[in-house]
Amino acid sequence: MVKNSTIELLGATGSVGQRIIAFIENNPWLKLDKVCASERSAGKRYKNSVDWVQSTNIPEEIANMSVESPDPKNSDADIVLSALPSDIANNLELEYATEGLVVSSNASSHRMEPDIPLLIPELNASHLELVEIQKENRKWDGFIVTNPNCSTIGLAIPLKPLHESFQIKTIYVTTMQAVSGAGLPGVPSLKILDNVVPYIESEEEKVETESLKILGDINNRIIEPASFKIFASCNRVPVIDGHMESVFAILESDITIDEVADALRNFKGLIQHQNLPSRPKDLIIVRSEKDRPQTRLDRDAGSVRGMAVTVGRLRGWSKNTIGFSVLSHNTLRGAAGAAILNAELLKAKNMI
Amino acid sequence: MVKNSTIELLGATGSVGQRIIAFIENNPWLKLDKVCASERSAGKRYKNSVDWVQSTNIPEEIANMSVESPDPKNSDADIVLSALPSDIANNLELEYATEGLVVSSNASSHRMEPDIPLLIPELNASHLELVEIQKENRKWDGFIVTNPNCSTIGLAIPLKPLHESFQIKTIYVTTMQAVSGAGLPGVPSLKILDNVVPYIESEEEKVETESLKILGDINNRIIEPASFKIFASCNRVPVIDGHMESVFAILESDITIDEVADALRNFKGLIQHQNLPSRPKDLIIVRSEKDRPQTRLDRDAGSVRGMAVTVGRLRGWSKNTIGFSVLSHNTLRGAAGAAILNAELLKAKNMI
Amino acid sequence: MVKNSTIELLGATGSVGQRIIAFIENNPWLKLDKVCASERSAGKRYKNSVDWVQSTNIPEEIANMSVESPDPKNSDADIVLSALPSDIANNLELEYATEGLVVSSNASSHRMEPDIPLLIPELNASHLELVEIQKENRKWDGFIVTNPNCSTIGLAIPLKPLHESFQIKTIYVTTMQAVSGAGLPGVPSLKILDNVVPYIESEEEKVETESLKILGDINNRIIEPASFKIFASCNRVPVIDGHMESVFAILESDITIDEVADALRNFKGLIQHQNLPSRPKDLIIVRSEKDRPQTRLDRDAGSVRGMAVTVGRLRGWSKNTIGFSVLSHNTLRGAAGAAILNAELLKAKNMI
Amino acid sequence: MVKNSTIELLGATGSVGQRIIAFIENNPWLKLDKVCASERSAGKRYKNSVDWVQSTNIPEEIANMSVESPDPKNSDADIVLSALPSDIANNLELEYATEGLVVSSNASSHRMEPDIPLLIPELNASHLELVEIQKENRKWDGFIVTNPNCSTIGLAIPLKPLHESFQIKTIYVTTMQAVSGAGLPGVPSLKILDNVVPYIESEEEKVETESLKILGDINNRIIEPASFKIFASCNRVPVIDGHMESVFAILESDITIDEVADALRNFKGLIQHQNLPSRPKDLIIVRSEKDRPQTRLDRDAGSVRGMAVTVGRLRGWSKNTIGFSVLSHNTLRGAAGAAILNAELLKAKNMI
Repeated sequence: MVKNSTIELLGATGSVGQRIIAFIENNPWLKLDKVCASERSAGKRYKNSVDWVQSTNIPEEIANMSVESPDPKNSDADIVLSALPSDIANNLELEYATEGLVVSSNASSHRMEPDIPLLIPELNASHLELVEIQKENRKWDGFIVTNPNCSTIGLAIPLKPLHESFQIKTIYVTTMQAVSGAGLPGVPSLKILDNVVPYIESEEEKVETESLKILGDINNRIIEPASFKIFASCNRVPVIDGHMESVFAILESDITIDEVADALRNFKGLIQHQNLPSRPKDLIIVRSEKDRPQTRLDRDAGSVRGMAVTVGRLRGWSKNTIGFSVLSHNTLRGAAGAAILNAELLKAKNMI
Repeated sequence: MVKNSTIELLGATGSVGQRIIAFIENNPWLKLDKVCASERSAGKRYKNSVDWVQSTNIPEEIANMSVESPDPKNSDADIVLSALPSDIANNLELEYATEGLVVSSNASSHRMEPDIPLLIPELNASHLELVEIQKENRKWDGFIVTNPNCSTIGLAIPLKPLHESFQIKTIYVTTMQAVSGAGLPGVPSLKILDNVVPYIESEEEKVETESLKILGDINNRIIEPASFKIFASCNRVPVIDGHMESVFAILESDITIDEVADALRNFKGLIQHQNLPSRPKDLIIVRSEKDRPQTRLDRDAGSVRGMAVTVGRLRGWSKNTIGFSVLSHNTLRGAAGAAILNAELLKAKNMI
Repeated sequence: MVKNSTIELLGATGSVGQRIIAFIENNPWLKLDKVCASERSAGKRYKNSVDWVQSTNIPEEIANMSVESPDPKNSDADIVLSALPSDIANNLELEYATEGLVVSSNASSHRMEPDIPLLIPELNASHLELVEIQKENRKWDGFIVTNPNCSTIGLAIPLKPLHESFQIKTIYVTTMQAVSGAGLPGVPSLKILDNVVPYIESEEEKVETESLKILGDINNRIIEPASFKIFASCNRVPVIDGHMESVFAILESDITIDEVADALRNFKGLIQHQNLPSRPKDLIIVRSEKDRPQTRLDRDAGSVRGMAVTVGRLRGWSKNTIGFSVLSHNTLRGAAGAAILNAELLKAKNMI
Repeated sequence: MVKNSTIELLGATGSVGQRIIAFIENNPWLKLDKVCASERSAGKRYKNSVDWVQSTNIPEEIANMSVESPDPKNSDADIVLSALPSDIANNLELEYATEGLVVSSNASSHRMEPDIPLLIPELNASHLELVEIQKENRKWDGFIVTNPNCSTIGLAIPLKPLHESFQIKTIYVTTMQAVSGAGLPGVPSLKILDNVVPYIESEEEKVETESLKILGDINNRIIEPASFKIFASCNRVPVIDGHMESVFAILESDITIDEVADALRNFKGLIQHQNLPSRPKDLIIVRSEKDRPQTRLDRDAGSVRGMAVTVGRLRGWSKNTIGFSVLSHNTLRGAAGAAILNAELLKAKNMI
């Protein structure tokens, strides 16, 4: 991997775009060399077009880059990272793929399409098989891969080993999500300070369907989703970063809590590509303190900052009913890191 | 009800004690005339011994009252309201009852004892039958009634009509609780700002057991708890007042969401004492907006401020599985108001 | 005052408009009978066009009112309350006045014009003299009165008695302002949670100039501003409502702190109209506790909720240098209440 | 500096102690090998005696260390870092010095004593001259150095170059301080969420006096404090880390804002010891954006995380009056980092 792959970033001034820029700064494989945003920003220097809300400075070489309008016909990036809002992503990502480009998208627009992989590299890298099917279906030279919604990621990761080991029957999940998940301007402060809002547009549907696609198998050229049920309640709480999820799981097998803890702790991910730069050494950190994970203390967990998820409060009430809390960083593991890790996976597999 | 009943308040300087003082100020039936607190405060004026955190001023006549040490042998109150921490309540409440006094307690110490009523007047006033049993069992002239934990109250109220109409099989509930529930000093700000803490000492056990006692029936002089199961996950979030609870309910009957909404809306409470001063006209407010209840907007709901609970986000996934969010004010409906409403019930029933 | 005066409200769906609707609900003099908002809302019922963020419900009769587009030519209100953003207020208020209507505006557009009164009724009702001058200057039948910026109000009120008694030389003021001051959508939560932002667009200029106009005198048909200097630093902090201001005042006279406290406490306002419905009995509440005022505890102070300002932490370092903190409710005393109180003053003076 | 100096940490379980442990983990000069705390913790493993609130884990080798009671007679550390509360620090630090140990203290107990240096290495390392005087005065083999209060540090650093270049006449400063400054349990969440508290015990006195000692000169074996005046108003706001300070400075010289910006930017600190491991490359970062510094975005600034202070909003109103905002990390630059940097300075000067 001597040479960097070049990245074009769509939606560079939004909050996910900003996170990607901060996250990718020292990436040994990927080099950001084009930042795109809406007409309003085009032509300006990046630093003059962005309302930067990250706690690190804009990397010097990006700060002075000129922002461009997205132009699928004039892109020669090895990979296009899309941090677009879904209404814009919808057509624009198709145009990039049509023009032969590879797109790693954080947008929801194409996540649930049957020939587009919805990837968490450690869980379902095998779904990359869909890429060939997608190219055939759509007569494209390029292709699209997507990463899940930020609250899906934190849930799907612990569900994978649980489902493999004990077969899940039903999941009841309540999320407590950070405001950064809504981007910029996102949630008005007047609506969230000293408040909990028990509703996030379209979020519950995403959690309930995306997780099942991710944990599904490819049969006859399409994904057969995992067959259990997920019931979700999504809430916005006044924290900056980090989605806490409270999960009740009904399993097919009778289990002990120790077996569950072992299954989570021992899960190493299903890919062999140990060397992806943004892959954390341990994907799931299981904590035994009575009051962990906590949003502020655990959101940055992982050997790559924020790329591990933390599970705690494991408890069982009956032979097949367990509860736990899981915490993941919604814009590191959840959005920016997810799209970047997918790009790294494609590179490791020589697909870009 | 011409004459006021006299109140002695235990734990008067704590946050629940403060709320009781503010709440009772204009009560037409109850008159606070003795405030008790620990040795440290005894002898001082109330205003000089309290770290007042309410947004209304200390009522004039209380501000200058002298704080006394609790003394069961020298009490002649019509009713003793206990806002004590449970470790102190444990013996002290027994001593008051032994001395012939009537105690309405917000402490958890005696809630689950089989001959002590755990009351929400609108739900189970009939449990006052236990008072005679209690007096016989314990050879007391006085007696103790208790109100539930603040997060139990918000849950138990909507469960009552659901259980009556459709029979509940299982409840999965995740709470998002305000810091005022932990009193003073309570939760350090360093541990909750920009954070969610997925653990509150003993809280889940309370929610899981108290609700079943409240919804139970008296058989052979003891409470037979309701027979369904409750699985609870209790979380602290950075809001001042108001407990949000996200509930999944599995029912025995197949239902429609409209039937559920009707059952909640039409529930008027089971007591005839419409005139309790702190009883709200509507106990359950059902909202149909997609994003209500919200903690800050709905915690004060009710014709008596904060004494109604608000249910919203009613939704169904299958014939017998529903979800909803319920919001209640943890220190109004939940602690101060609960103990006061119990006192009013006793007065209406001529038990004080 | 038997009959209500009729009100037309401009900017009815914004956060100040919402506050006016909630505030005016039971006003004995003023009756809201027309709600106006932008094209986007026109024709819809109020409840369907507003993103209501108040903790009381929309008053029933307003909820179902049809929202109209502002139309100066078709208004017959006794008074028009303007809760418009300043860019829109600029022309629209002029048009209303041209059409012969009386406008009480919360917008900044015309505050500093020499023939338009900038009113705090208790301080400078005498500036209503400008109305006749304004009408002559502009050949209007109608006229405009304005109220100050929310952070100006909290400052100007204590400065009035200080300046009268001791003559102010210089003021250094640092504000810590609530997010509700920025309206809706206003400050993104991602930019203010766990943060202080030391900048609010145009705010310092307003504080520095408006206060001097309010405390000025009319000479030769124009306002001669008070002659001292104000240096302001305006900060946004993560609180919902209530502006805290830390003030250092250098006075011309040598004083004692007791003299200052007396001057503040004894200031009863300069108007005789004691009966304005929204006027608080005490305008300035002086607290002697070491840690008051506090934003959450004191913002609702006043016999009319939120209409008093609270001063505390009075301290002196040298013969003519004092410090204090002042807290005012930015949307009650500061915006909604200010515009309503001005309307009441006009009614008491038979100017509407 | 081949060999590490050994550190004994007093107050190791408090929040400043925790910060020191996290901060010092990879320090190339200093090695923590003894953690002391109160009787209650003594004998337990560190991880079992601490209520850890840092977002990084307890370093492995510290987690399992046994906590000891402070024992001046049995200490052989090269330097003792004191993160004690001041009431305990008062005598205990004297005992350590009496026993011949070198103490770097964050406690306020001895800061203002005339023969004890109050150090910010980049500003007044020359005050180390006091050490010899101290030893003579007190007949000690050991000695004590102290670092300032967290809100003093953020202020004193920009004042140093301003005073040197333009001579300060008067400072009016209003602080907006984070809750971590109050340690654990510290500020109850019920007292600070959605609130500003305009009072911090003893804080204003510290800001007003400590800064002048730091900027003073040694004459005749004692510090002659700088001769200007500081008026301070200290406020607590609901943020986790980072003290924002709004400063008005009246200078003796007429200046332009550019001259001030240059003086701040060019100030490189007065010591030659460029290689102190915890010394940031740039001590003062001057930002020109209209809305910086911000607490959350700038508190971690510096080539050593959190060790720079950020100045912004520089503005002038008249020839000799300027205003600016300064942001510093109260527990990195302010407490833990301050005590550690002082230890490094002592080592660089061969005083330990």
